[in-house]
Amino acid sequence: MAVYTEVSDEELAGFVAAYEIGEPTSFKGIAEGVENSNFLLHTTRGRFILTLYEKRVDPADLPFFLGLMRHLAERGVACPTPLAKRDGESLGTLAGRPAAIITFLDGVWPRRPTVEHCAALGAGLARMHAASIDFPMHRPNSLGQASWRPLFERSREHADQVAPGLADEIDRSLDAIAATWPAALPRGVIHADLFPDNAFFLGGRLSGIIDFYFACTDALAYDVAICLNAWCFEPDHAFNVTKARALISAYRQVRPLSATEAAALPVLARGAAMRFLLTRLHDWLRVPPGALVTPKDPIEYLRKLRFHETVSDIGGYGIDA
Amino acid sequence: MAVYTEVSDEELAGFVAAYEIGEPTSFKGIAEGVENSNFLLHTTRGRFILTLYEKRVDPADLPFFLGLMRHLAERGVACPTPLAKRDGESLGTLAGRPAAIITFLDGVWPRRPTVEHCAALGAGLARMHAASIDFPMHRPNSLGQASWRPLFERSREHADQVAPGLADEIDRSLDAIAATWPAALPRGVIHADLFPDNAFFLGGRLSGIIDFYFACTDALAYDVAICLNAWCFEPDHAFNVTKARALISAYRQVRPLSATEAAALPVLARGAAMRFLLTRLHDWLRVPPGALVTPKDPIEYLRKLRFHETVSDIGGYGIDA
Repeated sequence: MAVYTEVSDEELAGFVAAYEIGEPTSFKGIAEGVENSNFLLHTTRGRFILTLYEKRVDPADLPFFLGLMRHLAERGVACPTPLAKRDGESLGTLAGRPAAIITFLDGVWPRRPTVEHCAALGAGLARMHAASIDFPMHRPNSLGQASWRPLFERSREHADQVAPGLADEIDRSLDAIAATWPAALPRGVIHADLFPDNAFFLGGRLSGIIDFYFACTDALAYDVAICLNAWCFEPDHAFNVTKARALISAYRQVRPLSATEAAALPVLARGAAMRFLLTRLHDWLRVPPGALVTPKDPIEYLRKLRFHETVSDIGGYGIDA
Repeated sequence: MAVYTEVSDEELAGFVAAYEIGEPTSFKGIAEGVENSNFLLHTTRGRFILTLYEKRVDPADLPFFLGLMRHLAERGVACPTPLAKRDGESLGTLAGRPAAIITFLDGVWPRRPTVEHCAALGAGLARMHAASIDFPMHRPNSLGQASWRPLFERSREHADQVAPGLADEIDRSLDAIAATWPAALPRGVIHADLFPDNAFFLGGRLSGIIDFYFACTDALAYDVAICLNAWCFEPDHAFNVTKARALISAYRQVRPLSATEAAALPVLARGAAMRFLLTRLHDWLRVPPGALVTPKDPIEYLRKLRFHETVSDIGGYGIDA
């Protein structure tokens, strides 16, 4: 849930006047997203999303995020695209924060993803990867594999409060991942946070991918691994191999995975589980007093990590090795 | 901020299918309102608000609230009105809770109300009062004057933790209010919670009044007193007599205040300040662990109460007595 910043009607009217989108007729904070403040803005000419970038987003990264959305949208990927103001810029200032108005995408995110959702998601992810090949900007993955050990060290001391033995288990798993982490996979722009609440569907069709504020340059197959974690486990924590097969198969029909990428998928999936385990553990141990957001359970990702440790090759995800 | 209940896409599609409003195309939780879960619903035929009634609303009161909105909308008051399903009912069940789809109102609530806003609000309040005269249902005000002493007793023991001497001050003020509380004022349906975030404006015009979930049968002039508290104090806690004069004058042009009502306004305003002081004090002392909502400051209403204690007649609100 998020609306961290209050916007006065005068400030809103002034901000909207810099665009050619008419006058505001409605402005409501959206109770989704945890990094930024998002508002649904209706004007006399249409509906839009207004995003205020809060302190967890580095303003220096905004040209990358906004440029990427524009690049993808121009190539036919269904994603929000920032509007240009009359002065040609797509980034402005509102209530003392960087802010942008982006296009509104129809669709509803799937609370209970089906096999069909997973297949559509896999194909959409591959189209996004293919479309970003010629995007000229780069952004290092600040939550990439090299960051995990230092991130863990910030939580190690208190990790066993969350689950007995957790610190040792993460320690061993980090070593194992580092020992086999693939160095030379095809790289490009990855979404890096493509959970179900960032994918909109209309009647079974993927109508849009949103929230590119973790996007960065990294191994493309690592994005597939993140999606395996985010889309293919059931609420009872069981891995659904049918969903994994659907996701990977649909991906490969748009963008083939090389033999090296396919072989790396289990360790990439362990890494992806580790990345979310560590950030959730970090946040779990640091809930501020009076917090507006309930932190997500790190143990969910410990279970996912343990599952992937049982997988030796892509056959474990329902695909012929 | 509110979205307390998760709604699956299948549940949503089934619920919407009971109405003649087409298929859902977008569904977003709104980060406003603290009593219920509200969603902005776009369908192939328009945009609507979907409200899930959470546990703080008594289901037995819903026919009153929904009937009132329909009654007012039919008489030209700009307020949301519940849609009827194909079966003629306007109340259904979604995610295990009572739920309704209501019309979407254009407008933006004023973060910094001006004198013009206060005048428009006063006239709109009077139109609402006039339109509700022939509404046949009744609902007692569960937060009316008789409830304040028992409500205070639930917080008295800890009140001085919020401000030294607060318990004694409230005690004396409750006695003084009870001694002069007017018994025989004109009664009708009052909104009882008409704060700026419940009033939408478009270009200075009042475009709608929302959130009737505290509406009840009580003295109409008490609703004016609630609005004096909610609209006519500045962020530095100073009372703005120009705003009060604008609000009351505009009200009286639509619905004249009797001499008895005008004379009662100072004690009604003290009572209105007391009502919000007591509910805020109650909530302040009972913030649950991990609360998603930051409670509102009770001291703001203590200051308002003290101001009204200095007012002896309606002249204190800028109106010739």
